[in-house]
Amino acid sequence: MPNPIEAVRWNDATDAVRIIDQRHLPARYEERELRTLDEVVEAIQTLSVRGAPAIGICGAIGLAVVTQRQVPDGPDFAARFHQVARTIREARPTAVNLAWAVDRLLARVAGIADRSSLLAALRDEATRILDEDRTMCRAIGDHGATLVGDGVRVLTHCNAGALATGGMGTALAPVYVAHAAGRQVAVFADETRPLLQGSRLTAWELSRAGIPVTVIADNMAASVMRSGQVDLCIVGADRIAANGDVANKIGTYGVAVLARHHGIPFYVAAPTSTIDPATATGADIVIEQRAPDEVAMPFGVRTAPESAAIHNPAFDVTPAEFVTAIITDRGIFRGPYRF
Amino acid sequence: MPNPIEAVRWNDATDAVRIIDQRHLPARYEERELRTLDEVVEAIQTLSVRGAPAIGICGAIGLAVVTQRQVPDGPDFAARFHQVARTIREARPTAVNLAWAVDRLLARVAGIADRSSLLAALRDEATRILDEDRTMCRAIGDHGATLVGDGVRVLTHCNAGALATGGMGTALAPVYVAHAAGRQVAVFADETRPLLQGSRLTAWELSRAGIPVTVIADNMAASVMRSGQVDLCIVGADRIAANGDVANKIGTYGVAVLARHHGIPFYVAAPTSTIDPATATGADIVIEQRAPDEVAMPFGVRTAPESAAIHNPAFDVTPAEFVTAIITDRGIFRGPYRF
Repeated sequence: MPNPIEAVRWNDATDAVRIIDQRHLPARYEERELRTLDEVVEAIQTLSVRGAPAIGICGAIGLAVVTQRQVPDGPDFAARFHQVARTIREARPTAVNLAWAVDRLLARVAGIADRSSLLAALRDEATRILDEDRTMCRAIGDHGATLVGDGVRVLTHCNAGALATGGMGTALAPVYVAHAAGRQVAVFADETRPLLQGSRLTAWELSRAGIPVTVIADNMAASVMRSGQVDLCIVGADRIAANGDVANKIGTYGVAVLARHHGIPFYVAAPTSTIDPATATGADIVIEQRAPDEVAMPFGVRTAPESAAIHNPAFDVTPAEFVTAIITDRGIFRGPYRF
Repeated sequence: MPNPIEAVRWNDATDAVRIIDQRHLPARYEERELRTLDEVVEAIQTLSVRGAPAIGICGAIGLAVVTQRQVPDGPDFAARFHQVARTIREARPTAVNLAWAVDRLLARVAGIADRSSLLAALRDEATRILDEDRTMCRAIGDHGATLVGDGVRVLTHCNAGALATGGMGTALAPVYVAHAAGRQVAVFADETRPLLQGSRLTAWELSRAGIPVTVIADNMAASVMRSGQVDLCIVGADRIAANGDVANKIGTYGVAVLARHHGIPFYVAAPTSTIDPATATGADIVIEQRAPDEVAMPFGVRTAPESAAIHNPAFDVTPAEFVTAIITDRGIFRGPYRF
């Protein structure tokens, strides 16, 4: 089963990072090749590439590509290489996977002085990160697909799909695997205000794969559930606490409460690396507030008066009691959770 | 207590219908005067004036103004007058209040042949409709304000405010009355996708009245409730069935389920004329589907791929069991409802 799309990968022919430029979706499908440090940093900063795993992979492949292309051999090779690594690592400070991926490459090449050996090691480690991500997505898909029988209608929120990873995504992986197995699967995609990742990205990648998808405004999920059109919910996760509380895109908690009320199973799909045993409960997770204009000025058009306050939390916390099960690359975990 | 704003009224000085042009809010406050048949019809069709009561009032005053200005005395006066009435009545076929208001004027002038007597009767009846609407809003406000104590934080959905009526609105009337009584009241306004009446209109009219308002994306209501920031919900209604089921703007049902889950009272505010004893339950209400592009192309920007289906119901039905009480101009009714 090939990947539905490839959000980020090597282009071996041109020796570049090949990404799908997500800024233009769904209006326009555009691939970009990143060859220079400026291009890699700009792609990460402008959200041409997004989704924690995809950003990490872009940074890793980017470091290998840029080092080969822009850091020649010489007495200051090591210094310049580390400068490049630092610049990529800091392109998006809140993207944990980016720092993690760059650090992993740095650890791999620690002690290697010879340029061509270092380049080979970078290339190998970045490829490993990409391959591991693909394998992880696929494992989530295989485990999760056992829950997605023929005719099942899934509701999802935001985009935890192929566009967010190097592979087939997390929340959407079970859908892709079930679809590939010949089962009829249909998806409701919450549009996911304010940034509309559901309508812009989830709907785009599912339709491209030939999977029927219906976009709804977030406030329509309740009536769709009540009318019996949803069999189960699957969402991704930004962080999972040791007790199973889940931080994910704002609106996830509301979906969970509505699912519970309507007797619909609510699943979270995420790699085990998303589980953070150092976070005891969701109460320990600080909720980032994002720019008011994401809500007040969609597409540059003022929709809320300047005199109104705006509340724009990036995510919310869904208590573990609402999570029917957590679908991971290592299997499906059911509560009570003790990670 | 003056009205917070006047969405639609007479302009006696210029003998015109004076409306607030809601198309430009919140970016720009603009009043318009409607003097001709074309202007009245266009204002209704383009949603310059919106909200069932406000549309009805606009049609009523409009009929009086247009008849006086554009229908001269003569042998075909009666025929031309009825043609004008028919044209206004059909400007928006789904707006029940519009047909109701025009029919009420026609019934009032039935049998009056003399032009100046007819004009006086039209003017009197249109003024009555406006005055009754103001009185009705105020009565809802007075009854509802008994529920809005000092320091209360209200969450509302869509716009059932002064902009939708000739008076101070329905769902927002209790807030205005409580505020005028010197109580601290604050409001969370769901932005209300797809047409954003919450951010565009509710937030605008409340801030203009000096009432603190915070705009949230619809999917944030759940986490705001969970964090203990909402004391009660008040929403409007398009139709209330005999058993108390409430049809209102899409998303209302979700708010009701979330309110129930968090132990927050959920009130519906509406004139008794909204209660339809001929509709036994919400199951008898046909849900209108609106244009897909309202969801897929906000502000002309494509946010969902053309290959995706779009679900865009205009409203949903909240079962009576979720409605703590219905605030009307004749008092507050609590379930079980038998209208």
